[in-house]
Amino acid sequence: MAERRRSGGRKGHAARRGSAVIEQMPWRLPINRDKPVEPLSEEGVAALHEGAMRILEEIGIEILNPEALEIFREAGAIIEGDNVRLGRDFVMEMVAKAPSQWTMTPRNPERELVIGGEYILFGNVSSPPNFWSLETGRKVPGTRAQCAELIKLSQYFNCIHFVGGYPVEPQDIHASVRHLDVLFDKLTLCDKVVHTYSLGRERVEDGMEMVRIAGGLSREEFEEKPRLYTNINSTSPLKHDHPMLDGWMRMARANQGLVVTPFTLAGAMAPVTMAGAVAQSLAEALIAVALAQYIRPGAACAIGTFTSNVDMKSGAPAFGTPEYMRATQMTGQMARFYGLPLRSSGVCAANVPDGQAMWETSNSLWAAVQSGTNMVYHAAGWLEGGLIASPEKFLMDCEMLQQMQRYMEPEVWATGPDEIALDAIAEVGGQGHFFGLQHTQDRYTTAFYQPFLSDWRNFEGWEQAGGIWTAERAHHLYKRIIEDFEAPELAPDRREALEAFVARRKEEGGAPTDY
Amino acid sequence: MAERRRSGGRKGHAARRGSAVIEQMPWRLPINRDKPVEPLSEEGVAALHEGAMRILEEIGIEILNPEALEIFREAGAIIEGDNVRLGRDFVMEMVAKAPSQWTMTPRNPERELVIGGEYILFGNVSSPPNFWSLETGRKVPGTRAQCAELIKLSQYFNCIHFVGGYPVEPQDIHASVRHLDVLFDKLTLCDKVVHTYSLGRERVEDGMEMVRIAGGLSREEFEEKPRLYTNINSTSPLKHDHPMLDGWMRMARANQGLVVTPFTLAGAMAPVTMAGAVAQSLAEALIAVALAQYIRPGAACAIGTFTSNVDMKSGAPAFGTPEYMRATQMTGQMARFYGLPLRSSGVCAANVPDGQAMWETSNSLWAAVQSGTNMVYHAAGWLEGGLIASPEKFLMDCEMLQQMQRYMEPEVWATGPDEIALDAIAEVGGQGHFFGLQHTQDRYTTAFYQPFLSDWRNFEGWEQAGGIWTAERAHHLYKRIIEDFEAPELAPDRREALEAFVARRKEEGGAPTDY
Repeated sequence: MAERRRSGGRKGHAARRGSAVIEQMPWRLPINRDKPVEPLSEEGVAALHEGAMRILEEIGIEILNPEALEIFREAGAIIEGDNVRLGRDFVMEMVAKAPSQWTMTPRNPERELVIGGEYILFGNVSSPPNFWSLETGRKVPGTRAQCAELIKLSQYFNCIHFVGGYPVEPQDIHASVRHLDVLFDKLTLCDKVVHTYSLGRERVEDGMEMVRIAGGLSREEFEEKPRLYTNINSTSPLKHDHPMLDGWMRMARANQGLVVTPFTLAGAMAPVTMAGAVAQSLAEALIAVALAQYIRPGAACAIGTFTSNVDMKSGAPAFGTPEYMRATQMTGQMARFYGLPLRSSGVCAANVPDGQAMWETSNSLWAAVQSGTNMVYHAAGWLEGGLIASPEKFLMDCEMLQQMQRYMEPEVWATGPDEIALDAIAEVGGQGHFFGLQHTQDRYTTAFYQPFLSDWRNFEGWEQAGGIWTAERAHHLYKRIIEDFEAPELAPDRREALEAFVARRKEEGGAPTDY
Repeated sequence: MAERRRSGGRKGHAARRGSAVIEQMPWRLPINRDKPVEPLSEEGVAALHEGAMRILEEIGIEILNPEALEIFREAGAIIEGDNVRLGRDFVMEMVAKAPSQWTMTPRNPERELVIGGEYILFGNVSSPPNFWSLETGRKVPGTRAQCAELIKLSQYFNCIHFVGGYPVEPQDIHASVRHLDVLFDKLTLCDKVVHTYSLGRERVEDGMEMVRIAGGLSREEFEEKPRLYTNINSTSPLKHDHPMLDGWMRMARANQGLVVTPFTLAGAMAPVTMAGAVAQSLAEALIAVALAQYIRPGAACAIGTFTSNVDMKSGAPAFGTPEYMRATQMTGQMARFYGLPLRSSGVCAANVPDGQAMWETSNSLWAAVQSGTNMVYHAAGWLEGGLIASPEKFLMDCEMLQQMQRYMEPEVWATGPDEIALDAIAEVGGQGHFFGLQHTQDRYTTAFYQPFLSDWRNFEGWEQAGGIWTAERAHHLYKRIIEDFEAPELAPDRREALEAFVARRKEEGGAPTDY
């Protein structure tokens, strides 16, 4: 606080940033030391692997990209039309080239991420076309202003490590230049790792170029290591489309982060049985990994799981279900079997940030923890199966994420003599309490997690303060965070270079929208 | 539904019961096959054990019950005033006599419970003095009518296995006879395992007697096996009070279920460090187990954990925190080390059934699952740190419990050829979808969990149906369940005998209220 008053100075500025409205946990890369929950036996793992391999060998995947087809042909695949079949020896040889851990370095090197191992990192919601807040009171098409607010929240919260896609899709910007404006906002409002959509050559190349400019890097420096990432979804069942594969191969060649996430809803785009859905998801993911490794051995790949189930009454997707949780854990076991980092998500089917939203999101986030997930997409702000982004939900999710981050800190379960505290116990004995004890006084400011959104007052205290339910508390806090937001520093020449790039690309017409 | 229309017949009656308002999961004893989450290393377990043993050997526990003191003296304890110190050899010898698994058999033998092993069973909220619902709109003192409603919900939901304490304390009944009326309501509205408070001789003896009468048992038959249970809390730090120990010993002699749960809030009644709080909790629990085993070798004991932390700003208890979760997991490791079943809880600090209530409760319920907990108290209906019972929260919690029950069913992660479903995947190939497939049609009615409270419609469908948030949906459903409730059968002579017993005990003045 003293530092805040020393206004103007660099240090005061830095100290204030991100600490003014709430006290939040520090930026760090959480390490998940717990053994993962593993429902599958060794035989179960073998059966899923066998299933995935037989899908690749006997059924094949449709590859709707001539360049990728040509590469697979060269690699010795069996190709009939667009159908590609791969032998398991080739697949496993390629998968073995993929690193089990890799880094991504954004323009602020202090925000470097490690993907893989025991690290678990969280990203904001990506790609909802709509926005909901207590202010709009209804579902509305996303705007650039709303998108910028969600980028600010993503930057503000230390528990958010990477900034994926459009936090909400700004439908007030023409689709041909949307990626330019949003990436400009991201790179100027935010210094964390960003994402680019694999939706056509222009978007991918523009994304890489803008990250390069913002980082003040030569192209050679840019390609030295992953700086950003893309995510591709197969068109389940058993199909990869042209633009996604195009982006995938471009990013592989440029040494950037690659995540492939089949969207295999059991009962719709995949078998109604979870093992079948997971096996299919693995086959669809592994063929993309094989492609990347063939193009660039050692390419930074991760596989994602988006296996959930549909509501068999309506066909609507369901999220955060028991089946979703187990599919995530099963995929985690398989990711470790293949030695690949895992991506999963924080998801719900709920339409508003209420009780259901929280139990569904909590289920999916705990599944991420239990599965050994390394990247958790959509971990803050997601509603309505990904069709709505909500700032209130964003804050509620961040409260859960902070609690998970604290949950992973080993001091919580430390058992040294100072923690067993026999002297303190003997001192208090059967009388009195521990409040005033030196052992307590020495530790009380840091002993326990302090929430920023939970209200721990008793009913009467809470009622006197207005009796405000969680979503409304989140709303007020979100408004204050946005008001108080300060963008991280960016050298003026880099900002100007970004502006010039965006202006030039807009003049050129941006990206085609008819792919 | 056909059976419902066949009104009047026994079968129609049975089929209707519990299935009319919602489709819920069947009654079963869930088995938690996952390996528990174990934060402690082997050294950590040894350190906590050493801590607990040194507390018992060197610091001692205040035993405010002359009869218990006398028993400990006979057993060779070192006694100074009320302070009892036990050697670890004696403690471990006694603990070794305790069964790691035992049963409880209520008047309906189909509701028999197994406590221990991989079983995880859930009970309703117990003992809140206050009630909150969307109807009362505020916190109000509990009444018998509200208590009866919560008993009906506890009976109605198959995911609730046992019915603990007063679901809300009926303050419109005089304290001296409260236990008689509530146990009468429980035993007539409900056929599941019940609980009796260890608050003085009369309440315990009345409780056992009423369960005996409801079961149509002789005293000898009653004592053949556990029929009900009690729970005692130590008065932390390091103290057991007279009435609780009195009930504990009575129940032990009568071969009934015994659960001891120290309430060790770190920083208040226990060290600020979680390991210290857990070590103290273990010492307080193990001395009670040793007492029970000395009185009756093989007595049915379980240890509970209620270790959480206080909010260091206000001193208020916090629940469902990261520290709470780890303390629960640590205690689970120790319960397995001692070969004792474990009790934990579903808890929150939130005052209303909103987002916070759900993330806190979800954290505590997942901690119960991860810790290998066998009995989960307060798993439905708890608010405000246990000071409020809420029917809306009850239903919201049951939705989570059902999902956990489904999560534990091994068919979710089965990996046989029918589940890998290569034929189905080959049949669909890269075209179409799985909806119409025979493999899907054969399974779609049972493949996925169906919620009774979640709304999985898209935003527009949800909005058209009124845009109702979860708590309000729960309210409507709770009202319909209560309206439709039918009590389980109870032979008229047993009911009359219960009525006569209650009348006689009321004439005698019930139980003293000045303990």
